[in-house]
Amino acid sequence: MANRTDFRSDNVTGAAPEILAAITRANQGSATPYGEDALTESVEARLQEVFETDCAVFPVATGTAANALSLSVMAPAYGAIYCHELAHVNVDECGAPELFTGGAKLVVMSGAGAKISAADLADRLARSGKGNVHQVQAAAVSITQATELGAIYKPAEIAAIAEAGRPFGVRLHMDGARFANALAGGKASPADMTWRAGVTALSFGASKNGALAAEAVVLFDRNLAQEFAFRRKRAGHLFSKMRFLSAQLEAYLTEDLWLKHARHANGMAKRLADGLARVTGASFAAPVEANEIFVSLPEPLILALEREGFLFYRWDNAQLLRLVTAWDTDPADVDRFLAVAARHAGAAA
Amino acid sequence: MANRTDFRSDNVTGAAPEILAAITRANQGSATPYGEDALTESVEARLQEVFETDCAVFPVATGTAANALSLSVMAPAYGAIYCHELAHVNVDECGAPELFTGGAKLVVMSGAGAKISAADLADRLARSGKGNVHQVQAAAVSITQATELGAIYKPAEIAAIAEAGRPFGVRLHMDGARFANALAGGKASPADMTWRAGVTALSFGASKNGALAAEAVVLFDRNLAQEFAFRRKRAGHLFSKMRFLSAQLEAYLTEDLWLKHARHANGMAKRLADGLARVTGASFAAPVEANEIFVSLPEPLILALEREGFLFYRWDNAQLLRLVTAWDTDPADVDRFLAVAARHAGAAA
Amino acid sequence: MANRTDFRSDNVTGAAPEILAAITRANQGSATPYGEDALTESVEARLQEVFETDCAVFPVATGTAANALSLSVMAPAYGAIYCHELAHVNVDECGAPELFTGGAKLVVMSGAGAKISAADLADRLARSGKGNVHQVQAAAVSITQATELGAIYKPAEIAAIAEAGRPFGVRLHMDGARFANALAGGKASPADMTWRAGVTALSFGASKNGALAAEAVVLFDRNLAQEFAFRRKRAGHLFSKMRFLSAQLEAYLTEDLWLKHARHANGMAKRLADGLARVTGASFAAPVEANEIFVSLPEPLILALEREGFLFYRWDNAQLLRLVTAWDTDPADVDRFLAVAARHAGAAA
Amino acid sequence: MANRTDFRSDNVTGAAPEILAAITRANQGSATPYGEDALTESVEARLQEVFETDCAVFPVATGTAANALSLSVMAPAYGAIYCHELAHVNVDECGAPELFTGGAKLVVMSGAGAKISAADLADRLARSGKGNVHQVQAAAVSITQATELGAIYKPAEIAAIAEAGRPFGVRLHMDGARFANALAGGKASPADMTWRAGVTALSFGASKNGALAAEAVVLFDRNLAQEFAFRRKRAGHLFSKMRFLSAQLEAYLTEDLWLKHARHANGMAKRLADGLARVTGASFAAPVEANEIFVSLPEPLILALEREGFLFYRWDNAQLLRLVTAWDTDPADVDRFLAVAARHAGAAA
Repeated sequence: MANRTDFRSDNVTGAAPEILAAITRANQGSATPYGEDALTESVEARLQEVFETDCAVFPVATGTAANALSLSVMAPAYGAIYCHELAHVNVDECGAPELFTGGAKLVVMSGAGAKISAADLADRLARSGKGNVHQVQAAAVSITQATELGAIYKPAEIAAIAEAGRPFGVRLHMDGARFANALAGGKASPADMTWRAGVTALSFGASKNGALAAEAVVLFDRNLAQEFAFRRKRAGHLFSKMRFLSAQLEAYLTEDLWLKHARHANGMAKRLADGLARVTGASFAAPVEANEIFVSLPEPLILALEREGFLFYRWDNAQLLRLVTAWDTDPADVDRFLAVAARHAGAAA
Repeated sequence: MANRTDFRSDNVTGAAPEILAAITRANQGSATPYGEDALTESVEARLQEVFETDCAVFPVATGTAANALSLSVMAPAYGAIYCHELAHVNVDECGAPELFTGGAKLVVMSGAGAKISAADLADRLARSGKGNVHQVQAAAVSITQATELGAIYKPAEIAAIAEAGRPFGVRLHMDGARFANALAGGKASPADMTWRAGVTALSFGASKNGALAAEAVVLFDRNLAQEFAFRRKRAGHLFSKMRFLSAQLEAYLTEDLWLKHARHANGMAKRLADGLARVTGASFAAPVEANEIFVSLPEPLILALEREGFLFYRWDNAQLLRLVTAWDTDPADVDRFLAVAARHAGAAA
Repeated sequence: MANRTDFRSDNVTGAAPEILAAITRANQGSATPYGEDALTESVEARLQEVFETDCAVFPVATGTAANALSLSVMAPAYGAIYCHELAHVNVDECGAPELFTGGAKLVVMSGAGAKISAADLADRLARSGKGNVHQVQAAAVSITQATELGAIYKPAEIAAIAEAGRPFGVRLHMDGARFANALAGGKASPADMTWRAGVTALSFGASKNGALAAEAVVLFDRNLAQEFAFRRKRAGHLFSKMRFLSAQLEAYLTEDLWLKHARHANGMAKRLADGLARVTGASFAAPVEANEIFVSLPEPLILALEREGFLFYRWDNAQLLRLVTAWDTDPADVDRFLAVAARHAGAAA
Repeated sequence: MANRTDFRSDNVTGAAPEILAAITRANQGSATPYGEDALTESVEARLQEVFETDCAVFPVATGTAANALSLSVMAPAYGAIYCHELAHVNVDECGAPELFTGGAKLVVMSGAGAKISAADLADRLARSGKGNVHQVQAAAVSITQATELGAIYKPAEIAAIAEAGRPFGVRLHMDGARFANALAGGKASPADMTWRAGVTALSFGASKNGALAAEAVVLFDRNLAQEFAFRRKRAGHLFSKMRFLSAQLEAYLTEDLWLKHARHANGMAKRLADGLARVTGASFAAPVEANEIFVSLPEPLILALEREGFLFYRWDNAQLLRLVTAWDTDPADVDRFLAVAARHAGAAA
């Protein structure tokens, strides 16, 4: 691992050696293209084990593709998709869900920690005009796990959201770009966190957590699979040399590499947050439940950290920082960050 | 290279060692995501050298994405895109151009070798209802180089097509999934084959010719670049860890690996075709100009080849075979194929 | 009726007095908007009588809306819609079917009289790649009755087309912009011509045959109705003051006005065609089965007719004329046209 | 006028006699279809006079079509359209703007009286991520005049909104379904209210104010006209017998019928509001500036009014009523409504 001090995002990381090795291993002879290969079958089987259920699995290369394609088989063009106003699908995908659904409407909700509540959803759905021809029709709700502010939905919260949607025929999508991070800290199983709680489709992320570029769409309702296959191809997201996506996912799932990575990332976030909690002037904007920290620091301290070469984003261009740890974060980097902070916090105070 | 005898397509191949090595090399430390990294900049610079001109370069992972996104900045939703009826954009992309353009119409033409002619295009455009509000408006023409039947457009043919489109404001897209193969055999430069002949946008293929999954959209009209950037993201084709796409392209372009690969593939096709020409009952459906062979063989011979473990597609489920050679085709496999053919052709006759 | 000699199209005509009177009658007091009024209900009931079956009826104002909205509930975005290359949906709607379906592909076929044949369709469907993820999926076939060249499908021909589609899940749409004209000449009932022959959705035209602007989409499969309602609204084709569309249709259906109009138009076409058959140099490009005549005439004769003030279109800008008669065509105009033709044909010969 | 007591909406009304008469007058002889007729030209000329400027005019039949088509030439598929959360384009068009733009995103804002403010817009645009490839790009803002809560934007407010958008290339659309009502009460000219204040495109409503079904899209930027023409046709909103739409608009504009109607409707609203202000327990939710009243009444009073045969909508299904007056509202009906209210309010108190 290079000497880096980059807390901007978990997508600034490279690929884990196990995953690169798997790609090299997969590079043997010819293979039937477009996912008709043994590795791709194997990934589906593995995810069925992980989730303890039958499910259809579609590898894609980006989180935006995983999310928008999932939603495209859950909402008609005249449908409405409920989500938090900070949801990646709403603010960071340049309208991909709208493109792939043929123009469905994202209806935004608010809520602390970038989480929506079942009660709010129930209220919104009650007033959504179901059956009223003038209004887009509630079709899906999308939640992010862990959320864009680093919070985690508990299985009971997820189940309540699914329950709120059910009377309206509203299905539940989970953007799991950081699904491993959400799972790593707790006792819930992958099944508890998803289909047992009523999730219909999951974007199962790997890119942020050690892969080069791989995500798996997991459809717990197999009836959606055929349409998904056509929509994936139509969107240019069906890879000819699919084995190289599948190899990444295979290695990611082998010996719980995905959870090991996530535990490391979460542990580094905790170490960083614990240290910052002792820094004068530090104030957390959200509880740290996964691998993201939202913390306000005094401006002189921020400038000092930047001078020392640390990379991070200022949230809304102000003194609120987002610090993201990852599967490869070096504890020494965390400690160095904390040392600089401690030193300059004293000076700043 | 594994012991394989797979002539189904050039997308059954794996990745070249130089390209895998480049990915490993790129896996150092953190990198700014979404293409703001040094490797991606370098790929643009290299392609500008290759094409001897300024141009905007956008790496994507699939040929369908490259084609459909290119067309999406060349034709409005009410536009018409002219192409051969066998064009990949028309028959093998499940409607991706229609999705990304918002519903533009592909207007199909015929022509030997899956090539369209400038004269036919001129004729079609003259009757296309330019300015007539009832008809979709001619906006683009897409040609494939090399074509789906393995033929190659000469620069003068390309220029004539571009010329035919110009009075109607019709711009020229080239699907270059096998651009290297088209170039390898002749004396035309990359520039001669594209912008000097009037090409506005090129899908510069690499996946079929040694990459894992990498193509570059090359826009010779920089005015299209900004819109392209938004449309690529919106389609889920902007990779966070872009360096891994760019590393493939970088290696692909280094020391003319792309042309070396293509020359090998074309050479293998010639060797195979020359041998088949001596087989009793063999009849070529198209001249062999790149790395694809379309040949009819007697049914007993086909069955014999299948029994011997050779893989290939029957075109239209009949006795017309498509045989595709690739950057990694083993001459011994070609010779073995020819030996089996010679032996059984005698038996068949 | 004004003194006019306009054979350009049946859409150059005005509205029938019965239909204007019905609009005036409907203009009493307030009415529940958006089709929840008594007149609209009544139109549905009347069309159920006309077609001798249960069906869902949706008034719209243009033929393009009727066609494209019908197709939008019959084909998914990744679907294929088969039609004749001259079909209105293909050449005269500026891509409306593509817009409303979210980018489905119109696959064109040829055939004399702008008719497609069941055999050709069966052949195309057999090669359509059903289930192949790379290809758009055959979903619907659209035929025009009477066709764009004035020919009429017999019920048995329609049934054969529907039959060809059935194994592929392909449903049949009929563009009946001139449905009345197709029906007027023969013995088939409206039911024979549509659902009994396997038609799923009909665009039942009125605008060309005496209405101001009114068409009815008739869905013989009620399962399509709910989605249709949302798509109609979403397309801006749900009228607030729906009663004024419905009033037109109500009058159109009263005392068989629609058939009376069509019989007149067809009779005028026959009178004109019979006369032209006796003109030296006249040559018919298609049999005259409804209210359209496609006839080649000597250039001097055409010029003479133009000088005399007759209006008509030159088909493909040549000596092939399209002459369209309508519900209000004056026999005296037809006879005057024939007299001029006879006089100048002699001169031309 | 029938004896009616319908305050549900101004779209429950019929057509004005002058407008019906104009339709009858237009029904003379044949006319070139699709808007190439003299009446349609004349409507454009008249609107140019009304607005004291050159502008392109496109008649359509519904407000949803007018709005969504206007927006479709102002925002790309990856664009964002800012509007009030109660805007008709956002809640009452079943996603028509999303359909016609190819999936642009409506970004909603709040504000009293269903008005947005320039300051809020400026704030939102500053944080909109202009140029950021991950976010939809601010392209247009749509305001409703009069608003969905019956309020009116002053020219200075409109100009400020346009001004806020200008640095971001954001253009201003005005949904003028009740444009006449907004204009009728004040001193601003049509030009002051639109292009002089920076409006690019106006949906000029007539259906709610005396037409059968007619609206005019007025484009103050002629550069948008060509694209608009194709998009209108592609959406099925180009009428063949256009003269009948144009006749309505012609009569609507003749001798200021449109303003006369609006003054009457507004006057009736004032009469009704003034009366209600004296009713015990009545509480206005918004100032009454045009022809809509939002008033809370005691439940027993509401029930009494319903028993007496008055029709109106309960807003959000509660005790807040929306009462809409129209061009044909009978003062006697207003007075009767007030009499019932006075009588039962006493009883209710």
